[in-house]
Amino acid sequence: MAKKVITFGEVMMRLSPPGYEKFSQASSFELVYGGGEANAAISCAYLGMKAAHVTRFPDNALGKAATQFLRKHWLSTKHVIYGDQMMGKYFLEKGAVHRPSEVIYEREGSAFSLIQPEMFNWEEILKDADWFHWTGITPSISEGTAQSCLDAIKTANKLGITVSGDINSRSNMWKYGKPMHEVIPNLAKHSDVVITSSRGIREMFDIGELDDNFKSLAKMLIDVYPNIKKVIKKTRRTLSASHHQIQGKMWNGKKYIKTDMLNITHIIDRVGTGDAFAAGLIYGLLHYKDKEALDFASSACALKHTVPGDVNTVSLENVRSLMEGNTSGAIKR
Amino acid sequence: MAKKVITFGEVMMRLSPPGYEKFSQASSFELVYGGGEANAAISCAYLGMKAAHVTRFPDNALGKAATQFLRKHWLSTKHVIYGDQMMGKYFLEKGAVHRPSEVIYEREGSAFSLIQPEMFNWEEILKDADWFHWTGITPSISEGTAQSCLDAIKTANKLGITVSGDINSRSNMWKYGKPMHEVIPNLAKHSDVVITSSRGIREMFDIGELDDNFKSLAKMLIDVYPNIKKVIKKTRRTLSASHHQIQGKMWNGKKYIKTDMLNITHIIDRVGTGDAFAAGLIYGLLHYKDKEALDFASSACALKHTVPGDVNTVSLENVRSLMEGNTSGAIKR
Amino acid sequence: MAKKVITFGEVMMRLSPPGYEKFSQASSFELVYGGGEANAAISCAYLGMKAAHVTRFPDNALGKAATQFLRKHWLSTKHVIYGDQMMGKYFLEKGAVHRPSEVIYEREGSAFSLIQPEMFNWEEILKDADWFHWTGITPSISEGTAQSCLDAIKTANKLGITVSGDINSRSNMWKYGKPMHEVIPNLAKHSDVVITSSRGIREMFDIGELDDNFKSLAKMLIDVYPNIKKVIKKTRRTLSASHHQIQGKMWNGKKYIKTDMLNITHIIDRVGTGDAFAAGLIYGLLHYKDKEALDFASSACALKHTVPGDVNTVSLENVRSLMEGNTSGAIKR
Amino acid sequence: MAKKVITFGEVMMRLSPPGYEKFSQASSFELVYGGGEANAAISCAYLGMKAAHVTRFPDNALGKAATQFLRKHWLSTKHVIYGDQMMGKYFLEKGAVHRPSEVIYEREGSAFSLIQPEMFNWEEILKDADWFHWTGITPSISEGTAQSCLDAIKTANKLGITVSGDINSRSNMWKYGKPMHEVIPNLAKHSDVVITSSRGIREMFDIGELDDNFKSLAKMLIDVYPNIKKVIKKTRRTLSASHHQIQGKMWNGKKYIKTDMLNITHIIDRVGTGDAFAAGLIYGLLHYKDKEALDFASSACALKHTVPGDVNTVSLENVRSLMEGNTSGAIKR
Amino acid sequence: MAKKVITFGEVMMRLSPPGYEKFSQASSFELVYGGGEANAAISCAYLGMKAAHVTRFPDNALGKAATQFLRKHWLSTKHVIYGDQMMGKYFLEKGAVHRPSEVIYEREGSAFSLIQPEMFNWEEILKDADWFHWTGITPSISEGTAQSCLDAIKTANKLGITVSGDINSRSNMWKYGKPMHEVIPNLAKHSDVVITSSRGIREMFDIGELDDNFKSLAKMLIDVYPNIKKVIKKTRRTLSASHHQIQGKMWNGKKYIKTDMLNITHIIDRVGTGDAFAAGLIYGLLHYKDKEALDFASSACALKHTVPGDVNTVSLENVRSLMEGNTSGAIKR
Amino acid sequence: MAKKVITFGEVMMRLSPPGYEKFSQASSFELVYGGGEANAAISCAYLGMKAAHVTRFPDNALGKAATQFLRKHWLSTKHVIYGDQMMGKYFLEKGAVHRPSEVIYEREGSAFSLIQPEMFNWEEILKDADWFHWTGITPSISEGTAQSCLDAIKTANKLGITVSGDINSRSNMWKYGKPMHEVIPNLAKHSDVVITSSRGIREMFDIGELDDNFKSLAKMLIDVYPNIKKVIKKTRRTLSASHHQIQGKMWNGKKYIKTDMLNITHIIDRVGTGDAFAAGLIYGLLHYKDKEALDFASSACALKHTVPGDVNTVSLENVRSLMEGNTSGAIKR
Repeated sequence: MAKKVITFGEVMMRLSPPGYEKFSQASSFELVYGGGEANAAISCAYLGMKAAHVTRFPDNALGKAATQFLRKHWLSTKHVIYGDQMMGKYFLEKGAVHRPSEVIYEREGSAFSLIQPEMFNWEEILKDADWFHWTGITPSISEGTAQSCLDAIKTANKLGITVSGDINSRSNMWKYGKPMHEVIPNLAKHSDVVITSSRGIREMFDIGELDDNFKSLAKMLIDVYPNIKKVIKKTRRTLSASHHQIQGKMWNGKKYIKTDMLNITHIIDRVGTGDAFAAGLIYGLLHYKDKEALDFASSACALKHTVPGDVNTVSLENVRSLMEGNTSGAIKR
Repeated sequence: MAKKVITFGEVMMRLSPPGYEKFSQASSFELVYGGGEANAAISCAYLGMKAAHVTRFPDNALGKAATQFLRKHWLSTKHVIYGDQMMGKYFLEKGAVHRPSEVIYEREGSAFSLIQPEMFNWEEILKDADWFHWTGITPSISEGTAQSCLDAIKTANKLGITVSGDINSRSNMWKYGKPMHEVIPNLAKHSDVVITSSRGIREMFDIGELDDNFKSLAKMLIDVYPNIKKVIKKTRRTLSASHHQIQGKMWNGKKYIKTDMLNITHIIDRVGTGDAFAAGLIYGLLHYKDKEALDFASSACALKHTVPGDVNTVSLENVRSLMEGNTSGAIKR
Repeated sequence: MAKKVITFGEVMMRLSPPGYEKFSQASSFELVYGGGEANAAISCAYLGMKAAHVTRFPDNALGKAATQFLRKHWLSTKHVIYGDQMMGKYFLEKGAVHRPSEVIYEREGSAFSLIQPEMFNWEEILKDADWFHWTGITPSISEGTAQSCLDAIKTANKLGITVSGDINSRSNMWKYGKPMHEVIPNLAKHSDVVITSSRGIREMFDIGELDDNFKSLAKMLIDVYPNIKKVIKKTRRTLSASHHQIQGKMWNGKKYIKTDMLNITHIIDRVGTGDAFAAGLIYGLLHYKDKEALDFASSACALKHTVPGDVNTVSLENVRSLMEGNTSGAIKR
Repeated sequence: MAKKVITFGEVMMRLSPPGYEKFSQASSFELVYGGGEANAAISCAYLGMKAAHVTRFPDNALGKAATQFLRKHWLSTKHVIYGDQMMGKYFLEKGAVHRPSEVIYEREGSAFSLIQPEMFNWEEILKDADWFHWTGITPSISEGTAQSCLDAIKTANKLGITVSGDINSRSNMWKYGKPMHEVIPNLAKHSDVVITSSRGIREMFDIGELDDNFKSLAKMLIDVYPNIKKVIKKTRRTLSASHHQIQGKMWNGKKYIKTDMLNITHIIDRVGTGDAFAAGLIYGLLHYKDKEALDFASSACALKHTVPGDVNTVSLENVRSLMEGNTSGAIKR
Repeated sequence: MAKKVITFGEVMMRLSPPGYEKFSQASSFELVYGGGEANAAISCAYLGMKAAHVTRFPDNALGKAATQFLRKHWLSTKHVIYGDQMMGKYFLEKGAVHRPSEVIYEREGSAFSLIQPEMFNWEEILKDADWFHWTGITPSISEGTAQSCLDAIKTANKLGITVSGDINSRSNMWKYGKPMHEVIPNLAKHSDVVITSSRGIREMFDIGELDDNFKSLAKMLIDVYPNIKKVIKKTRRTLSASHHQIQGKMWNGKKYIKTDMLNITHIIDRVGTGDAFAAGLIYGLLHYKDKEALDFASSACALKHTVPGDVNTVSLENVRSLMEGNTSGAIKR
Repeated sequence: MAKKVITFGEVMMRLSPPGYEKFSQASSFELVYGGGEANAAISCAYLGMKAAHVTRFPDNALGKAATQFLRKHWLSTKHVIYGDQMMGKYFLEKGAVHRPSEVIYEREGSAFSLIQPEMFNWEEILKDADWFHWTGITPSISEGTAQSCLDAIKTANKLGITVSGDINSRSNMWKYGKPMHEVIPNLAKHSDVVITSSRGIREMFDIGELDDNFKSLAKMLIDVYPNIKKVIKKTRRTLSASHHQIQGKMWNGKKYIKTDMLNITHIIDRVGTGDAFAAGLIYGLLHYKDKEALDFASSACALKHTVPGDVNTVSLENVRSLMEGNTSGAIKR
């Protein structure tokens, strides 16, 4: 029977000029929705898992439309709550070659940022889940979201649910009073799987640039927080805005595992590729051994670069085919 | 030589689903910009006047794009200032027949709402203007915007510039602490021309529903504030979301003037029609006698119902033709 | 707590040239989905009810996408099944004034038409429902769909669930061997609420044009099939493709009830307006007395004419407002 | 067997802002092609006739694309010739209600205007035709086009082909040196059927506004030029840009015939409606008696108002249905 | 004088989500038409040949629109016939990099599949042709289409018309009862030019994977069927969905010829590239010697990868330029 | 304080089929405006300079809309004049890989080509400028435009304003009677900065292909015309329509300077890249030393290849970042 993943985080309205237009050229915006955790949940759903996302939207037609987007992409929205007025938003101008994509956030004061911990009954929400996934964005938004995230993780621990955290936060995103290194470690130490980078680990411990070796940093993380079983990193080589290379790395407490580099030569949309990696890892660790899981995650990530929007809508068959080395993209009839 | 009008107010990004789609159906938004005062300025510019708009946008690419919209539509943007992060916004779902259009505002915390009076040097801004126009929306936003509006009006008085105010505010929009009837009268009394309604006058004086006769209320307004020379009202009969009727009324201290009813049988976009009326009145009072001015304003207003977006981009020739009774809309080759 | 309605029927891909283009002019198709029963279910969901639709789609990405459409519009798709290859389809060219809309169906051999009765466990499907709704289209498609529809109705009877049927079929649609009058009566007699027309009743009984009086025909229907409690008709006056008038009529066994005529002067999309009426009736009969229920149904129907697509996405508040006589469509801010 | 009509005239690229956007708002143009004579030919083709259009396009990819448009809409383009550089063009901004549509022409120096009479072998072109149709636009463009038109008409006379002319020219369009009244009479007098208006007849004879009675002017025209058998007028009442009324009138040398007024309440595109009338008349006179022919022409004209673009793509069935009084536009399934 | 090619085969409606959207994301479809044989005919027409396509469409507005597409792209549609109800269709989701394009066919029961041999008079159809082209798809559809194809080939033989066949069929496509190796050899042996692959030859003879050497297989084919003069293969190296390499190979009974590899680094649309190769070969063999013909075919094929839709609309000049080694794609002003 | 650049030249309406459609496929055109000199001015404006463009448009709504485009993109349009009827135009079909983009011009008889020197008061126009920029296109159009350009240059000399000329003309463009080598030298010799190529210098002097060495030709140019201080060339290597390489070269009278080659692997729009180079050079020479200026120009040029439309809307920050070697195009949040 299909495994069930629950995620928690903000879902933003994403507004992008068509094609490669710049903000100064746009007379319309393409509208999708996205947020790291929901992106991961949707990706899991397309891979065949059950998935539900927990979030808070404004209590108006825009909040409803955002919910409808999640439903359309197979999520359960039973635990979406509504209140206040503002929808979190980001504007995305898509770059190419040497021209960077540009993102402008408008999430301050959003319905999600005003969350209070008592709004959620995590025992009820998580009762039939197999996996809970969080990211470093959520605790960076407000005290309320940070505490709710911690509540969810602790409840998951209590219920024996596997917890993964994607520490994709940066210390300069923390603006509500508490610094990253005071909050994140408390969340990370209750997690089973941590996706991060050398910088993520250094910022989490506030230890500066002493060490840039992922393997040794990952080992240290597990030493300090023995509840963590696996530390994973996605390496991205950015040749240009149109051409990236992706490689997965994992320290599972015993072995250091690396995947082959995947070469994404014609990028369609690089937003959400990290979330596709996380989702691939969740699916992978639930269905494969570590090396295969990492291959699966990297393949899912690579494929997301070719899908417009934030969410990875490719099928299990697509990911498996790439994971098995079929990089040709030959037409399927 | 062309007369110059200056306006001051918030300009919002307007996001609408294409055609008659509802929010629940949209996968893109059409993007224009609008705000009552800028709408009036742009309309004046299309009629051949010089026009400048004073506002504040976030200091990012979205704020720049909004400025570009104003420039494109012939405004001087020399006195646009930038700061903070958020663009005021409204979402518009267009209705038809019995289905109402729906508007969702997101303007709390916008760059405009954070205006402080010392940000503007009104003597410099207004130095070569012939007319200053404000609306009741601006003072309803924040103390800073209310004070800035008052500063502008007083400076205009000092410089001998005609002032018009469109009291299109409603008392329930006032949320920053001061009620409408404490603020608006102070702005109105320094104005030469006031556009309002029976309700507007009652709310301005906080006098309840004692009297609904526009003529007597308008007389009272001029009696109380003798600086006001003309009180004007636009009557709208809403047969359905697709069919309105428009009539202008004016008390000029001596005579009560009414235009014929204009019958708008196939509405394209009814937003900004009040601003088109105000602009028509500004142009009209500068170029015609009172009755013709009111006819001109009503004709401009009627034509706006057929133009998509917030702003009235019809030409002087179009307005004149309708004002002279040519209602046929016959093709021009 | 919200009541739950279950519907059963084919959902087709609807492909329409943009705007008023004819088939000969189109270089793209707008894509939505529709089918009488699902349309009714979605409309009920937008009004606040729980709603699930039962259908069968081809087992491919197109069938999945159709399911996603239903999910987006709030339906439970738990009982959607998959098999075979072909998606039912209809092509819609939208007319105006004297030019009729034209519909081309391609539904022969669709996954739905190949349904076998044993594919559904109606006891399981209907277990927590309050209402089951069917239409005359379903039994006209194939023996399998007719039998499945009958199974559903009988199960609903057994479980004490209210059954409504919309006999919108025409005898010339019946091509799989059995004539309409052999099948429909058997379904109708187990229903509590029947929506039909004079012609519908005559064709059901195969009685020719002897009588065109709806009231007497409706009485006869209840006399013959006493399980039927209410017979309802929606009268449409087609002034042109752009202008219709709608009136609801009901015989409830005791009284003959009529609503005022609603005048829809600028039609946006008239497809699915009958289904919106049916949904309004379901909601209405569950929440109001008969006259109010009929007013509610007519108002829902009228509003659908202004919504693009097959499904009525207006809110409970919209319908209530029109039902209370607010026909002005005045903008809501 | 289907009758064959040949037409001769300029075909222009038509560029229009989407929907009701004004030129000042457009960031794209919708692209179709049109010209009075080709519009008529295409309309005849959709009604089931054989139809060929004779014209001249620039010798480049744009000229080829214009030819492809004619081919797509069923015309034979065997006698299209190519040369020079410029495509005739017109820009169309669509109006509504009181706002007129606006047309800007760019046809000076077009490939068509540079036509020389020797470019066409009319005996070859017309050899198997039943009808030749011209309009007053063609002779107003240049001496070359005027002479070519006269050559075609005289050849048609020689071959016994019926000739119709639509004198839709206005005297102020004549800019190449010869006035309208020196050229048009020579073309009209060799025609069997003349479509015109009171003003057309007056301008043709340069007789001022002495007489505005169509019936007496039409009689005079036949008296002076006895080769003309029928003089036809289409009366348009322009209630607004969105609402017209159409009536056909004919003097056939014996009787004065009028059709009922057709009421077009929601206009989609009024360009080319006169050409649709002419085509309807050609078809009608070939297949019906005079009164029915005039009804057919008026019905075709009315239907064109609901079709986007210059050309009338409705079917014979559509026209017949309206001609028989079915004005309801009820959906066809 | 231009040579004339006749082709015979199904033309399908092609429906694709815009850009790189997946089926799960689409709210509209781009509409073009395509089918291997018509694609080749259209390509020949753009190269300057006369071309006619023979097919059968449903007798409704969709069938007419499909015909109009062929006419627009320069084909004679004199021998298109109409009957039955269903249009063949395929849905195309465009991939990129590692993500494959996906095609879903709906052609079962189409008007084309229901063809009966007596519907065509091949002597009449082929009377002034220089070349007849068929593909392996047509005989795989039904007995009627297979027999019609054989009739056409034999008639062409009788009339001395060159015959080419593109054996692009796969044995698993054959579902109506006869296996590929019972039907194809009979068609191939009457052809002058055969385009195929090693697998095509093996499947045609049902000989398994004994031999994968194209040269020896091609020799064998000519040995067995001496009417065949040339056997040609297009090699495609699929580096990713966005990057292919193309090479032509030919055994002409005497020599084994190969072109240089063409490197298509940024694919726009890879559908129909094989048909563009076939068309290039037809044009090439009619106008060049074998090596040049093969270069021409490969160049035409390569260029098609940059044209959206099924059909190759590039000009003779474009193909010649690439064939002569100009791979730079430098802008032409 | 920001420096001010003035440019003079034709601005054309640019009409392009969407995406990669060919002219034969288009049913709409994307609309922007462009012209070498205005493109450069707009690019300078986006980099933070003041910029004004001098041109002449037709006196109608299309000329106004073109002006609005310039205003939107930050130009002063104070010196735009209006007259005559025709808008210069070009049609652009975008190529890819081996398929060249194709441009069709329609600029003969345009409002700009009919310019007479007395229409401009250059002393007034240039009075507060720091830089005047012209290109070789302007003098190739007509005697009037050539003389006006010379007037502007001489006035600039008189006022001490730096003059740059981009000799991007080709001798075969000169059709009004005077050959290129009679006109261009007179303009070049009064310029301070000349952008050209080996061919440009040869054609300017009408000296044939004796020498293809840019360095020696550039030296010669400065020897002959000592007012010229710098001769600059942009080398473009066209690997395909989708992949170019760009390098800047400069002879500044003392040193021969070259930039690194920039590799543009996924071109979005290559039109206007030369103008972006010119603008980068203007900005660069005003703010940097020669080598840095050339790097800045090459970076600006490279970035333009990723921006749709004629004009380079990237920011100063974007150009500086690439100039400093950041080629990764990494997303900016």
